[in-house]
Amino acid sequence: MIFSSSLLENAVNEFAKLPGIGKKTALRLVLHLIKQDEASVKQFSGAIAHMRESLQFCNRCHNISDTPVCNICSNRGRKQELVCVVENIRDVIAIESTQQFNGLYHVLGGIISPLDGVGPDQLTIESLVARVKEENISEIIFALNANVQGDTTVYYINKKLKGLPVKITTIARGIAFGGELEYADEMTLAKSISNRIPVENYISTGN
Amino acid sequence: MIFSSSLLENAVNEFAKLPGIGKKTALRLVLHLIKQDEASVKQFSGAIAHMRESLQFCNRCHNISDTPVCNICSNRGRKQELVCVVENIRDVIAIESTQQFNGLYHVLGGIISPLDGVGPDQLTIESLVARVKEENISEIIFALNANVQGDTTVYYINKKLKGLPVKITTIARGIAFGGELEYADEMTLAKSISNRIPVENYISTGN
Repeated sequence: MIFSSSLLENAVNEFAKLPGIGKKTALRLVLHLIKQDEASVKQFSGAIAHMRESLQFCNRCHNISDTPVCNICSNRGRKQELVCVVENIRDVIAIESTQQFNGLYHVLGGIISPLDGVGPDQLTIESLVARVKEENISEIIFALNANVQGDTTVYYINKKLKGLPVKITTIARGIAFGGELEYADEMTLAKSISNRIPVENYISTGN
Repeated sequence: MIFSSSLLENAVNEFAKLPGIGKKTALRLVLHLIKQDEASVKQFSGAIAHMRESLQFCNRCHNISDTPVCNICSNRGRKQELVCVVENIRDVIAIESTQQFNGLYHVLGGIISPLDGVGPDQLTIESLVARVKEENISEIIFALNANVQGDTTVYYINKKLKGLPVKITTIARGIAFGGELEYADEMTLAKSISNRIPVENYISTGN
């Protein structure tokens, strides 16, 4: 692409560095911003610069936060003894959006994946073990993806927590609501049968 | 989406204002920026803010420019008497990328489209007529999209330029290189036959 303006070119190149955004999309986005008034573009660039400068990670759960301890951890209305272990911040947002979980989180910052060069030391596993020892945590719920890396991570942390007085669970696997039995994969279907639940429990969850 | 950080939320909302970017994509882009070092994020936000503040439009051809007259108009090596009329800046970039056109441009800033509320007065048509009168322009080439709005615009400007000593042409329509005859629409195929060119001309363009 040949540009008549180096300012335009710089802006397009910066956008094109973002994942999944090519040069043509970058140009489209920049031309959109050019059409906006100066104040809204300033607001856009300001929000991003300010976020990167001021954003912190919660000392306790490692979630993204505006303060040293995030607003989930510091919310006394939430069950302090229940901790849900997730891979990243996106998972926290997904679970929070259900509005069904009232405990705290622990963000690992990834999962154990030797092929990608991610070992246990790069994750916040030590910090989780320390929390279990220091805080009054009664249950750890693993909400990791069901794949080799997720299972390895569950297995490793489970071993690390051995002997500590804490209940360890993982989220249920099964057929999704609205999912059709005939299209479910065999493993999910088999697990949903072996992990069947009494109908009273099913009804009491409101379904 | 429920965020644990208002800084994160603001940044995601700003990205989600861009065309074709939803909340989930916005979150993905912001989380990518969080992982970058502070200097690159500053460079990103700076490039955009700086562009919007400092960008100008060329006084002559209305293309985007860093200076009052753009580097295409001020390039004495280009044919000053040949002007290509295009709808927007994207079209200038597309034609410049071919490296086959050595004249100047005139960016209309849109096309006449009554349904979208765009009339001739919102475009730089008066400025084009003034250029034809004042500058020594021998040929105007229309490079507008071949649809009702494009044709209306060509018709309108053509009428405005009536009586002025300038040749008016439009870019050729026909079957694209690599395009298959059997999949071409009837209008394009019919036009490509009625506007057929001598084989010598075809060979001399290097194909």
